[in-house]
Amino acid sequence: MIVNDLVKHQNPWLSLGRETGIVVSSRVRLARNLKDRAFPGWAGEKECDRLCKEVADACGKVGRLSGAVVLDMAGLDELERELLKERRLISSEFADRRGGSALILSADERIAIMVNEEDHLRLQAIAPGLCLEETWREIDAVDSEIDRHLNYAYSPTLGYLTACPTNVGTGLRASVMVHLAGLRLTGDFDRVMKGLTRLNLAVRGLFGEGSEAFGGMVQVSNQSTLGESEQAILARLLGIVQDLIVHERNARARLMEKSRIVALDQVSRALAILKHAMLISSMEAVELLSILRLGADLKLVDGISEAGINELLLVTQPGHLQMRLGRKLDSKERDRMRAEFVAGRLRHVEIAEQRG
Amino acid sequence: MIVNDLVKHQNPWLSLGRETGIVVSSRVRLARNLKDRAFPGWAGEKECDRLCKEVADACGKVGRLSGAVVLDMAGLDELERELLKERRLISSEFADRRGGSALILSADERIAIMVNEEDHLRLQAIAPGLCLEETWREIDAVDSEIDRHLNYAYSPTLGYLTACPTNVGTGLRASVMVHLAGLRLTGDFDRVMKGLTRLNLAVRGLFGEGSEAFGGMVQVSNQSTLGESEQAILARLLGIVQDLIVHERNARARLMEKSRIVALDQVSRALAILKHAMLISSMEAVELLSILRLGADLKLVDGISEAGINELLLVTQPGHLQMRLGRKLDSKERDRMRAEFVAGRLRHVEIAEQRG
Repeated sequence: MIVNDLVKHQNPWLSLGRETGIVVSSRVRLARNLKDRAFPGWAGEKECDRLCKEVADACGKVGRLSGAVVLDMAGLDELERELLKERRLISSEFADRRGGSALILSADERIAIMVNEEDHLRLQAIAPGLCLEETWREIDAVDSEIDRHLNYAYSPTLGYLTACPTNVGTGLRASVMVHLAGLRLTGDFDRVMKGLTRLNLAVRGLFGEGSEAFGGMVQVSNQSTLGESEQAILARLLGIVQDLIVHERNARARLMEKSRIVALDQVSRALAILKHAMLISSMEAVELLSILRLGADLKLVDGISEAGINELLLVTQPGHLQMRLGRKLDSKERDRMRAEFVAGRLRHVEIAEQRG
Repeated sequence: MIVNDLVKHQNPWLSLGRETGIVVSSRVRLARNLKDRAFPGWAGEKECDRLCKEVADACGKVGRLSGAVVLDMAGLDELERELLKERRLISSEFADRRGGSALILSADERIAIMVNEEDHLRLQAIAPGLCLEETWREIDAVDSEIDRHLNYAYSPTLGYLTACPTNVGTGLRASVMVHLAGLRLTGDFDRVMKGLTRLNLAVRGLFGEGSEAFGGMVQVSNQSTLGESEQAILARLLGIVQDLIVHERNARARLMEKSRIVALDQVSRALAILKHAMLISSMEAVELLSILRLGADLKLVDGISEAGINELLLVTQPGHLQMRLGRKLDSKERDRMRAEFVAGRLRHVEIAEQRG
C-alpha cells in the first residue's frame, strides 16, 4: 500500500531548512473551484467522482506532478487517513471523507492536492524551515499549469470564488510553524500569542485547527484572503514571522545568560523522562520533544539533531505508531509502545554539559 | 556544636520498625505545667529562665535522660533551629523562641523535652514504624520520674492543666506518620482524608501543622485530650491507623495487579527526575522520594531501602542541606545542591524490572 510506504521515508518538512532551530516548516495552500459546478458540499457523489477524474487528468499533464499518486479516499482505511493527517497532507475534515474525494500527492510529498474537500481543489506546497517565497512559487507554478487544463471559477472583482467566503479572493493561506519553546520557558509565550491574534493572524497548534500549542509549537497563518495581493499577504506574514524569530532568539539568549541552569534542568528532565517513562501520551511526547528540540538548538544535547527530533514528533503520533507496528492499538498500548520506541531512539542521547 | 553533630547520625525515626513500608514513625507527646506558675506566654523572661533551670535539674535526676543535652534556645542560630525542626525535635513555634526556652534531648534523640513552648513542658517520644504503645510507655516513664521532682498543675476533675484548653486532661497527643502513596496513585487519597477528618482526627503533612500532605505523607493524631484515658486515646488511634494500613496495602496490591505498568511508570519517572534534574525544590524532593519509597516497598527498585529513602527525605530539607555544606544558601543554590546531592546518592539505584 502506497500510504504504508510513506512511513518509511521522511516527510519534507522533517528535513532542515533556513532558521530551522525555530521555524519547523512553511506551507502555502490555494483554494480553487471549477466554474459552473456545485461546490463539494452541494454536489452529489457521482458529480464529485466525475470531478475527481477531471482534476486527476489535468494533474497528469503537469510536469511537476509526474510520478504523483492519486489516492481515492474511499479506498483508505482509518489508519491510513490518520497517517496522512499526521503528515499534514490532508485536513481533519478531509480525513472523514469517503467516496468522491481524492488526494493527489507528489512523489516527494511537497505538493498535495485535496480534491473535493470544502473546495474542488485545495493545493498545498510544504517545505522545511522558513521558505514562504519558495513554497509560494512552487504551488503557484502548479496552479498555473492546472489552470490551463481546467476552468477555474474566477470573478474579475472578487478573485477566486470559494465555498466559504473567508477564502474568496486569492484563496491563499500561508502558514509557518514556529517553535517558541524559549518564550515558553521565559514566561513570555502568552503575551506574544495575544499580540499575534491582535494582528489578525490565525494561531494554531502543531496538529492544525483546534489543536493546542503543545510544546510552544505554533502555526501562524493569514486570516484574510481578500483585498491584498498574494505577495502582500506573504510579505506581511514573513515580516511577522521574522519578528517572532527575533523574540524567540532573544528569549533563548536570555535563558542561556541568566538562567542557564533552568534551561539545562528542563532539558535534562525532558530527556530523562523520555528515556525512562513506561507510558507516554502523544501530547506529553510533543511537550517533552519540544524541550529536547530547544536543547538541541542550544547545544545542550549530544546525539540528536533538530531534524531527528522533528521526525520523532511525527512518528510518535498515534497513526504512525500503529502503522509501524502493523495493527490497531488501544490508547494504553500506544502509550506503552510510544515510551518504548522513544526510549530506544534516544538511548545514546545525552546532556552535553554535565552539572558543574 | 552539638546540633551540628546531629547531621552525622541517624534520627531514630529513620531506622526501620513495624509496618515500615507504610508507617514512617510513631510519636507521643505530653503537655505538662508546674503548679502556681504563670504559663510561658504570661511569664517574664527571668521567670522562664528560672523554670528552665528547675526542669533541667529535675531531668538530670531521671535515669532515662542520662547523657541528655540541654540546649538553651537563645544560643542557637537560625540554621540550628531549622535543623531541629526538620528532625521533628521542636515545633515551628518553638523554633522562633529566644531567651527563657530550652530543649532537653536524649542522646538517642528518642526523647525530646521542650521547656517553655506553649506549656512549661512538652515531652515527646518518637520512634520508627508503628509503635504507639512503646513510645507511650517510654514517655510515661520519663513523665512519672520528672513528676517526683516537680509539682505538676493537676486538677482531680479536669486532669493536667494546660495553656490551651484543647490540651487539658491527659495533655496527650499521639500521632502516626503514614505513607499513603498507593492511595494517591489509585486516586482514593482525598476520599480517605475526608473520612479521617470526620473521625475527629487531626491530619497534617510531613512537616507538621500547616504543612501539606506532599507525597501522601500524612500525620494522623488525636484531636481531643479530655474525657478519655490515655489508653483509650491510643487504642482508638491505633485502630484507625490499622484501618489505614489495610486500605493502603489494598491500594498497593490493586496497583500491582491491575495497573502494574502505571506504578512502574510513576516510579521510573520519579527516579529518572531525581537522578537527572539540575534543580529540585524541597517540596518536589518529598513528592519524588515518596514515589520512590513506594517503589522500594513494591520491590520495583533496586539499590535503596525505605530507611535510605527516609534519610534522604530528611537530609534534603533546607536546614540539613545547608548544615551539611556549612553555610547559608539562597533558594536557587539549595535547589541546585539538593539535585546534585540526590543524584549522587541515587547513582546506583535502578528500576528492578525493565520494560517487557
